[in-house]
Amino acid sequence: MAYKVAVVGAAGYAGIEAVRLLLDHPAFNLVAITSNADAGQSLASVYPSFAGVSDLTFTTHDDPVLATCDAVFLAVPHTAALAAAPGLLAAGVSVFDLSADYRLSDPAVYEAWYNTPHTSPELLATRAFGLPELFADDLSAAAARHAAGESVLVACAGCYPTATSLGAFPAVNAGWMAAGAAVVVDAISGVTGAGKSANARTHYCSADENVEAYGVCKHRHTPEIEQILGLPDRVVFTPHLAPLKRGLLSTVNIPLAEGVAQTLTTEEAVERYRAFYQGRPFVRVLDAGQMPKTSSVAGSNACQIGLAVNARARMLVVTSAIDNLCKGAAGQAIQCANVVFGLDERSGLPLTALPV
Amino acid sequence: MAYKVAVVGAAGYAGIEAVRLLLDHPAFNLVAITSNADAGQSLASVYPSFAGVSDLTFTTHDDPVLATCDAVFLAVPHTAALAAAPGLLAAGVSVFDLSADYRLSDPAVYEAWYNTPHTSPELLATRAFGLPELFADDLSAAAARHAAGESVLVACAGCYPTATSLGAFPAVNAGWMAAGAAVVVDAISGVTGAGKSANARTHYCSADENVEAYGVCKHRHTPEIEQILGLPDRVVFTPHLAPLKRGLLSTVNIPLAEGVAQTLTTEEAVERYRAFYQGRPFVRVLDAGQMPKTSSVAGSNACQIGLAVNARARMLVVTSAIDNLCKGAAGQAIQCANVVFGLDERSGLPLTALPV
Amino acid sequence: MAYKVAVVGAAGYAGIEAVRLLLDHPAFNLVAITSNADAGQSLASVYPSFAGVSDLTFTTHDDPVLATCDAVFLAVPHTAALAAAPGLLAAGVSVFDLSADYRLSDPAVYEAWYNTPHTSPELLATRAFGLPELFADDLSAAAARHAAGESVLVACAGCYPTATSLGAFPAVNAGWMAAGAAVVVDAISGVTGAGKSANARTHYCSADENVEAYGVCKHRHTPEIEQILGLPDRVVFTPHLAPLKRGLLSTVNIPLAEGVAQTLTTEEAVERYRAFYQGRPFVRVLDAGQMPKTSSVAGSNACQIGLAVNARARMLVVTSAIDNLCKGAAGQAIQCANVVFGLDERSGLPLTALPV
Amino acid sequence: MAYKVAVVGAAGYAGIEAVRLLLDHPAFNLVAITSNADAGQSLASVYPSFAGVSDLTFTTHDDPVLATCDAVFLAVPHTAALAAAPGLLAAGVSVFDLSADYRLSDPAVYEAWYNTPHTSPELLATRAFGLPELFADDLSAAAARHAAGESVLVACAGCYPTATSLGAFPAVNAGWMAAGAAVVVDAISGVTGAGKSANARTHYCSADENVEAYGVCKHRHTPEIEQILGLPDRVVFTPHLAPLKRGLLSTVNIPLAEGVAQTLTTEEAVERYRAFYQGRPFVRVLDAGQMPKTSSVAGSNACQIGLAVNARARMLVVTSAIDNLCKGAAGQAIQCANVVFGLDERSGLPLTALPV
Repeated sequence: MAYKVAVVGAAGYAGIEAVRLLLDHPAFNLVAITSNADAGQSLASVYPSFAGVSDLTFTTHDDPVLATCDAVFLAVPHTAALAAAPGLLAAGVSVFDLSADYRLSDPAVYEAWYNTPHTSPELLATRAFGLPELFADDLSAAAARHAAGESVLVACAGCYPTATSLGAFPAVNAGWMAAGAAVVVDAISGVTGAGKSANARTHYCSADENVEAYGVCKHRHTPEIEQILGLPDRVVFTPHLAPLKRGLLSTVNIPLAEGVAQTLTTEEAVERYRAFYQGRPFVRVLDAGQMPKTSSVAGSNACQIGLAVNARARMLVVTSAIDNLCKGAAGQAIQCANVVFGLDERSGLPLTALPV
Repeated sequence: MAYKVAVVGAAGYAGIEAVRLLLDHPAFNLVAITSNADAGQSLASVYPSFAGVSDLTFTTHDDPVLATCDAVFLAVPHTAALAAAPGLLAAGVSVFDLSADYRLSDPAVYEAWYNTPHTSPELLATRAFGLPELFADDLSAAAARHAAGESVLVACAGCYPTATSLGAFPAVNAGWMAAGAAVVVDAISGVTGAGKSANARTHYCSADENVEAYGVCKHRHTPEIEQILGLPDRVVFTPHLAPLKRGLLSTVNIPLAEGVAQTLTTEEAVERYRAFYQGRPFVRVLDAGQMPKTSSVAGSNACQIGLAVNARARMLVVTSAIDNLCKGAAGQAIQCANVVFGLDERSGLPLTALPV
Repeated sequence: MAYKVAVVGAAGYAGIEAVRLLLDHPAFNLVAITSNADAGQSLASVYPSFAGVSDLTFTTHDDPVLATCDAVFLAVPHTAALAAAPGLLAAGVSVFDLSADYRLSDPAVYEAWYNTPHTSPELLATRAFGLPELFADDLSAAAARHAAGESVLVACAGCYPTATSLGAFPAVNAGWMAAGAAVVVDAISGVTGAGKSANARTHYCSADENVEAYGVCKHRHTPEIEQILGLPDRVVFTPHLAPLKRGLLSTVNIPLAEGVAQTLTTEEAVERYRAFYQGRPFVRVLDAGQMPKTSSVAGSNACQIGLAVNARARMLVVTSAIDNLCKGAAGQAIQCANVVFGLDERSGLPLTALPV
Repeated sequence: MAYKVAVVGAAGYAGIEAVRLLLDHPAFNLVAITSNADAGQSLASVYPSFAGVSDLTFTTHDDPVLATCDAVFLAVPHTAALAAAPGLLAAGVSVFDLSADYRLSDPAVYEAWYNTPHTSPELLATRAFGLPELFADDLSAAAARHAAGESVLVACAGCYPTATSLGAFPAVNAGWMAAGAAVVVDAISGVTGAGKSANARTHYCSADENVEAYGVCKHRHTPEIEQILGLPDRVVFTPHLAPLKRGLLSTVNIPLAEGVAQTLTTEEAVERYRAFYQGRPFVRVLDAGQMPKTSSVAGSNACQIGLAVNARARMLVVTSAIDNLCKGAAGQAIQCANVVFGLDERSGLPLTALPV
């Protein structure tokens, strides 16, 4: 059984990662890749790693084949998904949106942070939030509706929210947090996170041998993290750029309630996290004393999590590593699509990074 | 049908690449990984990218399970294969040797360049040379002997010789070279090529932001390239170290005979090369005017080749890119094993690098 | 007027940076460089960037010339300075110690974090703390004693404490912090911070394309930061390793008192910081909205600081960038020596990084 | 005595390197930096490493102050120097041109390789070629004319020609080459060599973890190398891009005459080179058996050269390392200006790279 799928915005970094994964997917058949800028060019001419392995050619975003697909992956900037999703859904195509357009439940929050009107807020009520390990019910419901013949919309979580929330959620869920305190998230991303656009920041000679913070106190993933964790106005999020291609590490500092800080050990925290993620193939909670390397997950859909309890200062420190393009974007979208289409969650998704 | 296989020297960079590939191989079942230094440790504790995906534990090189395997991959330094291969072969195990020990046909050349006696020269007469695109007959003969129940020895080509020879052979074979002239090979390798040993050269702060030549006029891959191309004392080979993990680019300068230089176009050279590599899934000859990037083949078993004719100075310039750990080591060994065991040459071998 | 100086531990990364700076210093004359491991080798043979510019040769740590110097810079691991400093001071040599041995005022804290006895606690009462922008009085007093003919001991601040404290101190000093809250410090260092020792962590193929946290909740710079800021048990410090040679970025999250959070603007915070650092040549507080790049200070003794007030979550976010080997080690030690010897604070210290 | 100088094209990578060096120069007073794209912006806002150390602001290329300078450095693309130089010279300003416009002695060669007319060929007869170690007479003559009150034009050598020619010239000059043979030059440059323009090639995610050849058989530095060495149509030049910011390594393969190859030792070659460069402060010929690292010269005006004789294949292999922005561009231009203005050749020029 093969489903027809397409990637819109396939020449961007998240889009081309979706293309890579879908070309090897056992159940999805990639029939179209669109890019207005690269339309007419072959896949291999734009990304030479595909030389000899695919004859696909980029088409424009209005390629009529999209409406004939079972699923379309939208790897486009925000507002572009607002423009594309309603029509596809109406045509019976399920939409897996990698953009931010349908992530925030409250359109007013979207408008405040993205500074643009939300043109299809009616879709928010039924869209599934695409972070399978934390929103399994959303995806089960979407799968049921899809099995009943409906087209469904999945708003896939962003890269920083994914790593951060997978690292923070079990602790918040366990009630370990000090009341009223703020979670401090300092995260580091590779340069693919800044996108394919060639500019002063992404020039090799700017990014190489440099780390810097950006978007401090105003990055748009902040309200998304707050929404997932249920902590409005209590997340301080500072992203950083580091000189690597792929990889995202989120260091999450969770203030512990006094009673928890006095008794919780790192080993117990590890145990609790492992129980929480029992049966989830992509999340691996490391032994107490170990912290993940981003290189251990690059190219894979895995998330590795390390924990340490700081009793002195009453803090749980969590570091959570993903590949920003895979588990943080294209891999997660395909994972969601696997669930929605009733496939094994792992179909077509690499579990293992290059060892070196 | 699953064959039992093992990797000796599995904790080194070529060894762990073999482990990565064999864990996903459809016909080879990896039953043992050996490393004297890491014996007793789990695969995931030494290479955390395997966390949660394999329960293998390193054993010592004298693990008795080796003698029960169908094939053993030797990812060991030179002389260690001399020690291990005869016993395995006698036990009926086919050996795919990634070291240099059985590559040179003449044991005197081996002894001159490696400064150590060759202790099993009798094996050289029947060993196959493991570079499938150029020594197809060797491997066919080995496959026939294997099918007849014999254990076989394959001496897999080295990383620099593989990239260089794939880039040079069709031109030499076509008779384009000026008589008596020397081929100049300047090649660049990533740091995995220097091995897993932590030393002054492989320290991040030495290798980062630096390129340098090494082993100038005395690198041991020189006689191997000369043997493959049939050009004794006519190869000048200078390897360089560059700040990347994986990837090898060989720039090969082939002096053209006067008549050839006056008439051969780059387009014709491309056409000839494409005809030569017709039907070989891993070699891709790029269009005239294009040169390969090492990042286009990293992590895959592909080799990409670009060509340019310099009529003014009577030179064919070829650049040839491989992943030194995959097509230059573990991938090639598995490709050879696929042929010997009668499998599809591509089994378990990635054709495509990460697009970014 | 030239003073005789020496560097003990000159072949390590902080030591060789001291050598670089001292070779160009207008008032200090470098007469000895010691390294037990490299004794007898020329400076240029160990660090080829010095080829043709210096005839110095490494000697052993017991080189008798040390006792004839005006000042000795100790660029040694902890405990080695405990062994060396008392004798040098007794011989009338002023000591600028880059190690941690005399930084912590309370020897019990030293013994708890470094797990070794403090063998000369009597020196702690009079040692100056070497962070000129925050401990000017300490260094003035040392300069006065030195002018009176005494030898003095300066315990130079560590790399993470320097960047972190320069970023946090003015806010703490202003009384902006919420009572009882913890400061969260997530810092990123280049690989020179891990030292010259070649090991699995510093291997190029481990550090490249990777970020990871290390020493979580137990890094020994934690009590040093707490001491400088006067915040015992209220600093959560997580260092990270990133793939660059030099550079350290400390992201400091300072919880604001409720009244402060409601009124303080980023512009006002910048103004306050600029007033605090008025007249200090190496500290530059950036305009509101700007955050520093580590590449802007690499190779120089500068510290660049960026500020952002997060009113929603009541947090001041500060990022502070230094070169870990210069302002974080050798440059700072020379800055301290300049003050002690009555020279211009800037003598021999680069103000500017390479622009690209 | 301070001379007024300016940099035209100061925001590009070669230009900003000139600015860095001139701000610390003891005899040149930098009064203007021009950039049409950045006019009106402060130096520090475009290159934040200059924060707090200079108040210069970019002006446009037609800044009238240029005509009042003693010297102007043109760090502009080719053809822009053709437009600017004649007017400056007529105004009595000496011009140090970092572009290619006046390097080639024969305007027909310029027109053939640059595909544009040469609009001031009359200047070629008297321009000095700016490569002080090889064209000392040119610069002496220019210095004499300058001392006599004339404005002079110096066409500074390009980056690849500088490294390559410093590596090859003594051998060619010694008559060691085989008659009629071609010199094969494979060179590697850091990404600053590709310029400040943000494009697909200079994007971090394209350049990182990649090496590739470019401009094969058609790079415009080819005729410049041939002119310097006096070897028309006998240079095969292939440049490569590697993932580092600064640094250029040229590997030069010089075919030896049969008699030379049989007798010349590497030690003798080193001796000859050292005699040739006797008294030149920036060129360092390494001991036999050593090859230079680009990191040993990055940020400095030094050139390090290593040699190896390959008797088997009758080849002298030379590797020559420079910083492409310093000795390969801005540093060399200032070195030329030092000579022309009668200053010490080393004025304002760093001899030493960062040791790590």
